[in-house]
Amino acid sequence: MSKHIGNQTIKFDLPPSIIETASIVGPKEGKGPLARYFDTILHDPLWGEKSWEKAESKLVNKSIEKVIEKANITPEDIQYIFAGDLLNQLTASTFGIRNYDIPFFGLFGACSTMAEGMMLGAMTIDGGFADYVIAEASSHFCSSEKQFRFPLELGTQRPLTASWTVTGSGAVIIGKNNNPPYITYITTGKIVDLGIKDPMNMGAAMAPAAADTIVTHFKDTGRTPNDYDLIITGDLGYVGKELALELIKKYNYDIENIFSDCGIEIFDAQTQDTHAGGSGCGCSAVTFCGYLYKEMKNNKWKRILFIPTGALMSPGSTQQGETIPGIAHAVVIENQLG
Amino acid sequence: MSKHIGNQTIKFDLPPSIIETASIVGPKEGKGPLARYFDTILHDPLWGEKSWEKAESKLVNKSIEKVIEKANITPEDIQYIFAGDLLNQLTASTFGIRNYDIPFFGLFGACSTMAEGMMLGAMTIDGGFADYVIAEASSHFCSSEKQFRFPLELGTQRPLTASWTVTGSGAVIIGKNNNPPYITYITTGKIVDLGIKDPMNMGAAMAPAAADTIVTHFKDTGRTPNDYDLIITGDLGYVGKELALELIKKYNYDIENIFSDCGIEIFDAQTQDTHAGGSGCGCSAVTFCGYLYKEMKNNKWKRILFIPTGALMSPGSTQQGETIPGIAHAVVIENQLG
Repeated sequence: MSKHIGNQTIKFDLPPSIIETASIVGPKEGKGPLARYFDTILHDPLWGEKSWEKAESKLVNKSIEKVIEKANITPEDIQYIFAGDLLNQLTASTFGIRNYDIPFFGLFGACSTMAEGMMLGAMTIDGGFADYVIAEASSHFCSSEKQFRFPLELGTQRPLTASWTVTGSGAVIIGKNNNPPYITYITTGKIVDLGIKDPMNMGAAMAPAAADTIVTHFKDTGRTPNDYDLIITGDLGYVGKELALELIKKYNYDIENIFSDCGIEIFDAQTQDTHAGGSGCGCSAVTFCGYLYKEMKNNKWKRILFIPTGALMSPGSTQQGETIPGIAHAVVIENQLG
Repeated sequence: MSKHIGNQTIKFDLPPSIIETASIVGPKEGKGPLARYFDTILHDPLWGEKSWEKAESKLVNKSIEKVIEKANITPEDIQYIFAGDLLNQLTASTFGIRNYDIPFFGLFGACSTMAEGMMLGAMTIDGGFADYVIAEASSHFCSSEKQFRFPLELGTQRPLTASWTVTGSGAVIIGKNNNPPYITYITTGKIVDLGIKDPMNMGAAMAPAAADTIVTHFKDTGRTPNDYDLIITGDLGYVGKELALELIKKYNYDIENIFSDCGIEIFDAQTQDTHAGGSGCGCSAVTFCGYLYKEMKNNKWKRILFIPTGALMSPGSTQQGETIPGIAHAVVIENQLG
């Protein structure tokens, strides 16, 4: 029997469990509204390292160490790590993971990477290929600004549509069907590019992909917004969230009352000067591993649709006048089965 | 029943079939020893585009179009594309794939990416998640030199340990168990870093990872070199191949008589001035999709071990004095089952 339903969705017969999560964030995230949900809050974004890139690798390394420790298992119990980040050639992940003797799949989905890892991790468990896998994603404000925008030292002014890259790493352990919460469905996104060119407005570039994946998820599964307690995108921010809402309404689905965005939840835009909201692979990763997972455990929500979003451009593609392709992947997390 | 055997290996109960392959290469590869195996040979590395990066995206796009056409199916039959390249933020792949309405998993494994895609593709098929998937990987000499080394216009002299990035894209369609050849085992590599720092000698940096994965494959499966007609690494080149051979001998396995490397096969080092050999994601991708697949179909070999290798560094990590972590993934391709 095929587990593939509709066009882009997999329904897991025996849904994998999210066994444990861990999150480490930077000082700014540690002053935001979700502070109490994070396992570790750094006082110094360099974390004793000589570069921001090395600090980001340390975030990767330590969040994986933490989630293994919290799950009360050992690195030998983990068959695969799925991980990615925003740095050129994925060096935050590869340097952060190299001391683990664990087979590694490097992923790039821009800020949708946490979902990409959770999807592949859940497929690996459901397919009978592993007992435990880790999915992890990270970003760092300083390494991202340096690589994608301007040197921090310039103090360049940011437009209000720009997002603030989250400093943080989130790691989950996915295992065989056991205790809740479970990953019950995944809807893998395709690339959607409606021609947005402004890298200072990535929310607008990603909104069509988010809308496409959410609507496809409803069509593939036959579910409606009423079936969810929370639908939360990755890092559309204030601008992209409104656009996605409008696009989804055109398909006659109204998700307004249950719709949020990790980039909006993680900072207080009024007091933290984060403009459009948080972004980066770490944004949806730590919001899931901290806030969403822990409140699922508290039964605040019974069923959520989690949709990390990615803007698939590079500084080079923007310099060559290219538009910004977007992608969004949806993962359903539920506390009750069937 | 777990399909995971030993430490890092999966044995497929009903091995997925490699349904079809397609390869497109640049002019230099088209003058090399494997020229007759490639589907398309370009006369111009820009392929009518305005930049090398856009030309590389066109390689991605057209190799996918070609493999679907050769398999006599349609894009709607493909459930997932697994793809990656060497460019920052994977833009060769994302821009090359954006016009396909197919769910996309972006991968980064440096020059091991073709194996990463084939492994995840085979797991996706065997797990019952799809009927057909595509795994694709690309590189382009000019975009790589520009990004990783020096502007071509400088005419910088290259040390003899340096490799020559292959211009090319290879795409495979993997489907359910049907006709040979089959993917029967995969051994996923872990990151191995023995402290090599010279980015002009990536063969030496990747050799320990290749040796580790090959030896682990033998231990996990109980197979020996005698079980294979050919063991072929990705892009160790002349320097790395000798090092890997020595390392593997220390574990009392002698693979010398059946050991080759895609980076050695693809160019004639004597006449083509390619020094250590070919490299880049495209190197193992087009060598597999052209030479290896077609000669498997001809029954030249009954069983091969294909081990694409990756050097997981970036220009930034090298500038910060970091070593070069390596990774290698092994895929077993066989013409006969059981």
